Amino acid sequence: MKKELITQSINLFVEKGFSATSIQDIVDAIGVTKGSFYYHFKSKEALLMHIHLSYIDDLLRRQKRILETEKTCRTKLMKVVEFLIEDIEAQGALGRIYYREIRHLSAENGAVIREKKNQFRDNIESIVADGIKNGEFRKNLQPKMTTYAILGMTNWSYQWFNPEGELSVSELAAIYTDFILNGILAEK
Amino acid sequence: MKKELITQSINLFVEKGFSATSIQDIVDAIGVTKGSFYYHFKSKEALLMHIHLSYIDDLLRRQKRILETEKTCRTKLMKVVEFLIEDIEAQGALGRIYYREIRHLSAENGAVIREKKNQFRDNIESIVADGIKNGEFRKNLQPKMTTYAILGMTNWSYQWFNPEGELSVSELAAIYTDFILNGILAEK
Repeated sequence: MKKELITQSINLFVEKGFSATSIQDIVDAIGVTKGSFYYHFKSKEALLMHIHLSYIDDLLRRQKRILETEKTCRTKLMKVVEFLIEDIEAQGALGRIYYREIRHLSAENGAVIREKKNQFRDNIESIVADGIKNGEFRKNLQPKMTTYAILGMTNWSYQWFNPEGELSVSELAAIYTDFILNGILAEK
Repeated sequence: MKKELITQSINLFVEKGFSATSIQDIVDAIGVTKGSFYYHFKSKEALLMHIHLSYIDDLLRRQKRILETEKTCRTKLMKVVEFLIEDIEAQGALGRIYYREIRHLSAENGAVIREKKNQFRDNIESIVADGIKNGEFRKNLQPKMTTYAILGMTNWSYQWFNPEGELSVSELAAIYTDFILNGILAEK
């Protein structure tokens, strides 16, 4: 039931937005009463927080595993980008509302999520910085902005990529990682 | 007055979202009556369409000028990326609501805006494709996905970049164009 409430509310938030979705809409969509909703969540905001927290905790856990198992900065970075893109298939809707609806969290909850998001980003920045230091990546890169560039193209793919289209998520991941590593210029 | 209505509503849409902002909120913010609003726009949706249309028409006009005046694919692409990033300073709030609120347009208006957005993107795809053909860019690039990668990192910068922070918009543009051209790998 809890899982169904979460799934349906994600669908409704994607479609109508968080503000325009009522608890009534959510319970109607699965044919239960408001009582069932309040048994699991004390408010619509509490549900939104639950969604945000599970999502970012899962990403941090998977990122941690990659940081611990991969050897080079290049493979660490590529594995993280790959799982973010490949997630579009399983968690695309979630990724789309994640950024759009964060402003509807309470100040306190928003701060918790932002800190975890920053942790995820900082871990990527460290990979880039380490790779510059050890000579894998170009010396003149700016680690923070390079991280934003990489996360920007990756996050944005949640807005437009259709895993049922011509390309699979793993093909997109290959194109994106090649772009990140090599840029677009022909070799001189 | 019309301009003030537009400016204030953009601020409110950024802050509270389109759904949660009422016409009353907009007119209260500038101290006029609802009558003044309806003199200029027949609905909140009509105002949103006006905002979307002015924004994308302006981008298309500036892109066209670059396509007509620049000679190489590399400079065409870089100039487009530069103006998108430098726009954060003047039009950042607008850019942030542009994507988030497009779903609140009527089906008909949404289709008009989407077609213009596609035109903007297709023009970039043509620059990439031409650059592959003429040898400026790598042969194994996929023009459509490369375009999405470039627009992704650029569009995303509207979400996080603070032009009053450590870096100026033109410094960010320089870092981003270098990333697009050269990627991150050290030369072998």
